[in-house]
Amino acid sequence: MSAAGPSAVRVARILAGDARAGAALMRDIDDGAVSAAEDLAALYPHAGQAFVVGITGPPGAGKSTVVDALIPLLRARGDQVGVVAVDPSSPFSGGAILGDRIRMQRHAPDDGTFIRSLATRGELGGLSRATAGVVNVLAAMGKGVILIETVGVGQDEIDVAALADTVVVIAVPGMGDDVQTLKAGILEVADVLAVNKADRDGAQLTARDLEAMLALRAEVARSAGAAVAPPPVEVILMSAGRGDGVDELLAAVDRHRHRQIATGGFAARRLRRADAELRAALGHRLRVALDQRLAAIGGLSALLADVAARRVDPYSVADALLR
Amino acid sequence: MSAAGPSAVRVARILAGDARAGAALMRDIDDGAVSAAEDLAALYPHAGQAFVVGITGPPGAGKSTVVDALIPLLRARGDQVGVVAVDPSSPFSGGAILGDRIRMQRHAPDDGTFIRSLATRGELGGLSRATAGVVNVLAAMGKGVILIETVGVGQDEIDVAALADTVVVIAVPGMGDDVQTLKAGILEVADVLAVNKADRDGAQLTARDLEAMLALRAEVARSAGAAVAPPPVEVILMSAGRGDGVDELLAAVDRHRHRQIATGGFAARRLRRADAELRAALGHRLRVALDQRLAAIGGLSALLADVAARRVDPYSVADALLR
Repeated sequence: MSAAGPSAVRVARILAGDARAGAALMRDIDDGAVSAAEDLAALYPHAGQAFVVGITGPPGAGKSTVVDALIPLLRARGDQVGVVAVDPSSPFSGGAILGDRIRMQRHAPDDGTFIRSLATRGELGGLSRATAGVVNVLAAMGKGVILIETVGVGQDEIDVAALADTVVVIAVPGMGDDVQTLKAGILEVADVLAVNKADRDGAQLTARDLEAMLALRAEVARSAGAAVAPPPVEVILMSAGRGDGVDELLAAVDRHRHRQIATGGFAARRLRRADAELRAALGHRLRVALDQRLAAIGGLSALLADVAARRVDPYSVADALLR
Repeated sequence: MSAAGPSAVRVARILAGDARAGAALMRDIDDGAVSAAEDLAALYPHAGQAFVVGITGPPGAGKSTVVDALIPLLRARGDQVGVVAVDPSSPFSGGAILGDRIRMQRHAPDDGTFIRSLATRGELGGLSRATAGVVNVLAAMGKGVILIETVGVGQDEIDVAALADTVVVIAVPGMGDDVQTLKAGILEVADVLAVNKADRDGAQLTARDLEAMLALRAEVARSAGAAVAPPPVEVILMSAGRGDGVDELLAAVDRHRHRQIATGGFAARRLRRADAELRAALGHRLRVALDQRLAAIGGLSALLADVAARRVDPYSVADALLR
């Protein structure tokens, strides 16, 4: 910590649930400000109570619509809700059609809900670092349920899923090769599988396909002599845009949460999250230190010209810079 | 460099175009072996001649089919071809349907073509580091044209595009919100825009939509008083699966290449690539150093339990570890 220390006033306001103070700290986190880490350190002991749900899946699966449909259900049962949208294609972020963006904003006047989008680009690892920070601010503000919407493609986005207590993977019928993508990677992180847009042709087929894959995975684990079977993964059908099946999704998420608490899986998730948070903090510190080093030697431009002309190689330059 | 130094025999074999030696080094690069950096440093002065083309776009756009269709055209005009597939949904990688994978392998017996897939997961930044390394090995093997297939979602994947001299973005008709995703991010890196699956409804509409966006971008730049207009981006229609329009795509890529050489843009791209390569090398060195530090203090598990229980915060732990 610097001599300045955390901003005691801002920390106190955030702990009292002040949305404006929370938003200001989130901006500092997104900017990578050093002072943000000091405030986050002060908030950290008070940010462990929230239940964190990851909502992931390929572009076009309807993740934002699912989040949009979950918010009123959570609010109706008394949960305060935080949302972090880290999908670059999300209506919360810059890249979306106006209609969707307006639709999401209907939650804004409700002070039990706080929505923040993140599309940090440029600093590798910045997305998971910023997401971890924003989740902690939302938790410190008293949001009991925090939804993280993420596209689930790319390491930075997959790392975001490591912050969640329960991960919902959204699939859609007729994805073609994209179902294969699900099979390849995202599926491994799923606690609940939701086939969205289930009013479309092929929804039952997609659901059966996913269930067959889960059964195969369990069978493979058994025949490989695994002591512990893979945890059960519920597959549900929904049409979030029509409001169909959203309550079933929430019930499945709740069941997963309670099963996790009963089996000790919850504690394991929290260790995984601590690991992700620590690695993000370390990575950020290292990048800041490296930038200072580069600034001290007058920047990179002369070095880069030598590398581009292949007079030196980047591996030897990296060694020299770090020595 | 360690006392061992590079493997002179392997380096010589790779420079002679030996596929087996190249493949072995690529495996070491993928594994993050320290010896890989030594061999890469020795190869680096001889790896600047290849023309590097990025093929990017959302899942399902048909990137692999485009790559598949480009290879015979390049071979027919005498180019040796290297392919790096860094799309986790690619038929080259693990996650694809068998038919596609078999289709791609028809290039394997042709020793003028070398295909390597990368799906490094777990080390943030590992994908761009490994891709940069594999591109240099392919170039040192004498591949004159190197195609990088990447999904273009996620910072690590976007960083991969920074390695390319020319970036082709593949769109498809009827992407719905995904066209918005293109607009938001990937479009900014496009040198050539290809609307694939142009036999589908809406292809002309998608192409016109993209051209309107490019015109708007030029208009915005002009009215903002930009001294230099955005470089021209050709929009072409193709159906790679039917072989339609692949020659037009290659012609557009060639035109971009020659325009770049004429205007000095090529040199700027090579500086950008040097920057990406140096940052990847630095990041890897820092991670290796950090892992050694953590191993020396007996690993993370006790620390992580304290963080998970919120007895300490990750920001202060990161500070303490790096002090």
